[in-house]
Amino acid sequence: MNKPAHTQFPIHALVQERWSPRAFANEPVEEQKLQSLLEAARWAASCFNEQPWGFLVATKQQTDAHDNMLTCLADANQIWAKHAPVLMLTVAKLNFAHNGKSNRHAFHDVGLAVGNLVTQATALGLSVHQMAGILPDKAKSLYNIPDDHEAVTGLAIGYIGDPQQLPDELRERELAQRTRHPLSDFVFTGQWGQSSAFL
Amino acid sequence: MNKPAHTQFPIHALVQERWSPRAFANEPVEEQKLQSLLEAARWAASCFNEQPWGFLVATKQQTDAHDNMLTCLADANQIWAKHAPVLMLTVAKLNFAHNGKSNRHAFHDVGLAVGNLVTQATALGLSVHQMAGILPDKAKSLYNIPDDHEAVTGLAIGYIGDPQQLPDELRERELAQRTRHPLSDFVFTGQWGQSSAFL
Repeated sequence: MNKPAHTQFPIHALVQERWSPRAFANEPVEEQKLQSLLEAARWAASCFNEQPWGFLVATKQQTDAHDNMLTCLADANQIWAKHAPVLMLTVAKLNFAHNGKSNRHAFHDVGLAVGNLVTQATALGLSVHQMAGILPDKAKSLYNIPDDHEAVTGLAIGYIGDPQQLPDELRERELAQRTRHPLSDFVFTGQWGQSSAFL
Repeated sequence: MNKPAHTQFPIHALVQERWSPRAFANEPVEEQKLQSLLEAARWAASCFNEQPWGFLVATKQQTDAHDNMLTCLADANQIWAKHAPVLMLTVAKLNFAHNGKSNRHAFHDVGLAVGNLVTQATALGLSVHQMAGILPDKAKSLYNIPDDHEAVTGLAIGYIGDPQQLPDELRERELAQRTRHPLSDFVFTGQWGQSSAFL
């Protein structure tokens, strides 16, 4: 199954083909591919090259680890994410190493790292569904995440599955058209709200 | 000039070749490429599909707009960013449209959108230097950015230039090796700090 973005202007296939499925195939992800996903995340840009990202990883081959990580997801996500062969929690380090001050861009830079991971996944034929719906406090105590760190998102990763395996409501969402605001709603020149001439 | 990441595991060329130069060629960026950069940003994932990102864009062809945006950058960035043919400010919408509540992932999702933009730029032979060093309050008043929004980063975009055009200290940084923490420092399984077996 494919759900490429219907774009107004041409974009690279790796960006166009990325989307967030809920149906995953019952097929493990090769270790070499996991290595490449995390290596891609590693090379993201970050403020002061702080690299304020961390990843907790659980694969379905280790049933206990997978079950434990599932308990850190919101119930609505557990329903489908339990079938994903790989789960991850992303973590942000909130303070700078060099001076202990608050890093305003910690969450932003985790986003950059995850963006790289997702691009790499797409290149390897994998799909990633990012979840904001997690329980950061639960994750913190379960994994002993340090004090100045915070769980940011969950990632469900694997090969795409058959939408028919999903409950009715989720299957509908799986098959629905992808939508985005028009560029003129969020790209401006000169003043906020003033459309850019090149659009 | 090229500065590919020296990776431990293989990654896609678009991720490997991305880096953040300070020397830009004195050459404009085609409008079609700008369109594709922002279209790529548009299709990022976001929490509740909120799309909490905005972009203010200034090109060197409009001298006033470019000069104005420069004033929103930290002095240390203005030195080199003034030569970039395209400048952008990224903006986060801090509250959800559907209920007005705080969006914990606003900055994170701006990072995802910028990640897409940067991947698209790399695919088109462009370079992007992201800057955390901006003046968000100045940007807010200059561009009338709405109350529940905040400028996040600056972007300098263009074709790569000759490092020789940079002042000594910046030239050294331009030519220096790129470094990242090893994967074993930030990828864990079971407990924070416990290395994953597949690494």
